[in-house]
Amino acid sequence: MTDKLVLHEDPRSGNCYKIQLTAALLGLPLERRQYDIMRGDTRTPEFLSKVNSNGRIPVLQVGERFLPESNAACWYLGESTHLVPDSRFERADMLRWMFFEQYNHEPNIATLRFWLVYLGQGNLSPQQREQIMGKRAAGEAALKLMDEHLTGREWFVGASASLADIALFAYTHLAEAGGFSLGDHPAVCRWLDRVRKLPGFVAMDT
Amino acid sequence: MTDKLVLHEDPRSGNCYKIQLTAALLGLPLERRQYDIMRGDTRTPEFLSKVNSNGRIPVLQVGERFLPESNAACWYLGESTHLVPDSRFERADMLRWMFFEQYNHEPNIATLRFWLVYLGQGNLSPQQREQIMGKRAAGEAALKLMDEHLTGREWFVGASASLADIALFAYTHLAEAGGFSLGDHPAVCRWLDRVRKLPGFVAMDT
Repeated sequence: MTDKLVLHEDPRSGNCYKIQLTAALLGLPLERRQYDIMRGDTRTPEFLSKVNSNGRIPVLQVGERFLPESNAACWYLGESTHLVPDSRFERADMLRWMFFEQYNHEPNIATLRFWLVYLGQGNLSPQQREQIMGKRAAGEAALKLMDEHLTGREWFVGASASLADIALFAYTHLAEAGGFSLGDHPAVCRWLDRVRKLPGFVAMDT
Repeated sequence: MTDKLVLHEDPRSGNCYKIQLTAALLGLPLERRQYDIMRGDTRTPEFLSKVNSNGRIPVLQVGERFLPESNAACWYLGESTHLVPDSRFERADMLRWMFFEQYNHEPNIATLRFWLVYLGQGNLSPQQREQIMGKRAAGEAALKLMDEHLTGREWFVGASASLADIALFAYTHLAEAGGFSLGDHPAVCRWLDRVRKLPGFVAMDT
């Protein structure tokens, strides 16, 4: 990879951490540029016009090009490395778990952490409060499905760690901050420990 | 591709249609097996144990293996074909739009269509009714972002149609059923027509 890599991030975001962790596991140098999403740093005219018109982080900058969406950025870094399976079916199956993460996992487990830890229960809108129970149930269902899948299996896809494990590790290891109990999911806990022992693993800053 | 391909689907689902359209554009034979999600066909013990423990369609069956998540199935079919760009950055950028579709587009635009057309406004729960305005605004924002991106550009990524266009076509061309007005997004309308003219294009059944 010859282009310079810059991660536009908020270090409290698990989505940003996925990219940091992928780069660390691959030994890729990554410059990190920090924004405070609570202060609106990603909604400024400059950010919207230059970095991401969707107003969101993370964005991976590759030379002069900008790549939003955490899992797409992980793919960019991981393609053709040991973090992406060699078999066509397993590659697609890895993406299957990454889409599951963005559809069934992140909007529930990460959102509850954000609401409870960063916004604070007392500051939630009535619409947000109405959604807590639904997000709690959907997040629990995602953790249960992961636990069943990991029972008798070391990694989400194939015989070694892949981007699917990285994508799902990010917000799963923070789930208790959103009020989820990981102790109910022993296979998930064992898998979290396995990820933490990968060569090159880095913990999240906060 | 030597394994037999079977699409487990509900023909009213745009997520299922993505896979059908990808196979059609690639000239791949695809057997279709139909389920009625309104009748709970995808929550039976047999479906959960054999096809998808997440209880959702579509699932692409490849020989004896099962692949959930619409965009992962499109990837499986499209990898190394003209529907996936040759450049590493553009491949990741295509996935970026596919993750955007599942995170910013489908949960708003497809969900409102499902609620209004299949459940019916009068049958929505108070929690669902509370979310309509938020989903309307988020869906509009997704369409606006697409329209800006497509202004002066023919396809989402690179110089020809890719899986990103297929993934986004599915629920965008149905958006008016969810109460969105496509007329406000002229570049999106021109792009929809471009997709409809692709060689091998098939329309959705319903």
